[in-house]
Amino acid sequence: MLSWIYLIAITAEAMSGALSAGKRRMDLFGVVTIASVTALGGGSLRDIVLGHYPLGWVRHPQYLLFTIGAAIFATVAARWMHRLRHAFLLLDALGLVAFTVIGCTIARDAGHTMAIAVVAGTLTGTFGGVLRDVLCNEIPLLFRKELYAIVSLLTGVVYLSLLHYGVPSPWATSGCIIGGFVLRVLAIRYNWEVPKFVYRDELH
Amino acid sequence: MLSWIYLIAITAEAMSGALSAGKRRMDLFGVVTIASVTALGGGSLRDIVLGHYPLGWVRHPQYLLFTIGAAIFATVAARWMHRLRHAFLLLDALGLVAFTVIGCTIARDAGHTMAIAVVAGTLTGTFGGVLRDVLCNEIPLLFRKELYAIVSLLTGVVYLSLLHYGVPSPWATSGCIIGGFVLRVLAIRYNWEVPKFVYRDELH
Amino acid sequence: MLSWIYLIAITAEAMSGALSAGKRRMDLFGVVTIASVTALGGGSLRDIVLGHYPLGWVRHPQYLLFTIGAAIFATVAARWMHRLRHAFLLLDALGLVAFTVIGCTIARDAGHTMAIAVVAGTLTGTFGGVLRDVLCNEIPLLFRKELYAIVSLLTGVVYLSLLHYGVPSPWATSGCIIGGFVLRVLAIRYNWEVPKFVYRDELH
Repeated sequence: MLSWIYLIAITAEAMSGALSAGKRRMDLFGVVTIASVTALGGGSLRDIVLGHYPLGWVRHPQYLLFTIGAAIFATVAARWMHRLRHAFLLLDALGLVAFTVIGCTIARDAGHTMAIAVVAGTLTGTFGGVLRDVLCNEIPLLFRKELYAIVSLLTGVVYLSLLHYGVPSPWATSGCIIGGFVLRVLAIRYNWEVPKFVYRDELH
Repeated sequence: MLSWIYLIAITAEAMSGALSAGKRRMDLFGVVTIASVTALGGGSLRDIVLGHYPLGWVRHPQYLLFTIGAAIFATVAARWMHRLRHAFLLLDALGLVAFTVIGCTIARDAGHTMAIAVVAGTLTGTFGGVLRDVLCNEIPLLFRKELYAIVSLLTGVVYLSLLHYGVPSPWATSGCIIGGFVLRVLAIRYNWEVPKFVYRDELH
Repeated sequence: MLSWIYLIAITAEAMSGALSAGKRRMDLFGVVTIASVTALGGGSLRDIVLGHYPLGWVRHPQYLLFTIGAAIFATVAARWMHRLRHAFLLLDALGLVAFTVIGCTIARDAGHTMAIAVVAGTLTGTFGGVLRDVLCNEIPLLFRKELYAIVSLLTGVVYLSLLHYGVPSPWATSGCIIGGFVLRVLAIRYNWEVPKFVYRDELH
């Protein structure tokens, strides 16, 4: 089941990346690159940081073909995309949570400590979007958006705690995906935000 | 022969990186860093993504000294650079194609699938410039420029197909370098472009 | 002693990263991420480039908790930070030099050549700040600032030369940390700069 959710997640992320690229008037190569980085960049960064080779898409190149297909589909279907806005946000929320659970699982199975597994989950869930924003020359949205990264972080902490206290993996997985998804949807609906830190003094 | 072309390619890329840094009024350290990243960043990223250690310039530090020398030369010779504009574009085109062929070869020799070898070739050919633009705080030119990345992609696909169907390596190498080079020069001359994807709706 | 200096250095760098994030009105997650990248990013990049796994903070997650703590402290103490401006610049100078010496030592112990060890030291000393600026969507300050990277480079070259000519490690370490620190403080005090390279012609 997790691998189906993973496919849905990379599709949603690839399409969101393609639309970001379209807003910056990129050509087809740029669109496909940004889409792939958005969908696969978080997991790739996690694997590079943990020294966990080969990377997912290097072992399974079909994931890459999948994101390329989703990106091309997004450019074709762009004119109908705004009607799918809500479906899209839901898919993105599902992707965020699924990526997080997958990232935690991979780091845990590789024998890393719980703190590192939480970081791995959050990197997987959120850094595809950070890399997309860096390549599109923007301050990463993530660092200023409503409860997005925090949902990933909380999902990771709760998921790993459940596993730690002996909750069977399928229960922990489905519970955290549902819980994190609901939290993210509530955050969008009610515009919950993390307090911002505003600093004005010129130090450097 | 490929290693001579490689030296020409990293020289051309290092000089192009140095001039980009000069346009942003960087100091000598910035110039040398941007030049090295432009010349060696694509290959380094490829090796990190494939887990192929040690990186080229770590094994052969003379490549790094070479790019530093080219960067310093470019700052000294900058006032004559605009006269060399055409020679420079030709060297850059040669570099793009040579990097691609080298990247494909390295990934193929390491036993990767053809899809991954194409990605490795394109990363090698193009991501030095992407990293340069990220460090110079610009939207990567590559994603919006005339037939640049596509030349790399096509060169990689044709090169690996030729090898796959038993064409001897020297023939495939020289054929693809000449063919890719001509395609790139024609793209510059006639300003061929990949269709752009323009998307205006605010989704995020 | 070096590990105490290391803790002081990552604290100083994390706080400087947190203040940078605060200037861009980031939320708490952004602040903590930027702080961690600033403090640990240079060393992480060095380890990824050298293929030296596990990364420091993956092996010792307490470093990560330390930077998170320092970041949160900086947000709380921000209103008094401008009074500490001078203490802060001194800590940052100490961090730069200590990171450099640590980076050189790690690369040297892993059997790399002297040229690569110098690069490793400079990467460790300076690229945390480069990654911070990339994530904050700025041209890296480092490439345009007064004698900063050059202090790191010189410290690395002198440190490795001393070791090469048989000076005992504790003497080389303390001598280079003191010498590099004094050089950096003089550079700030007298506003020493590396010549800038300014290039105006539009080549691309």
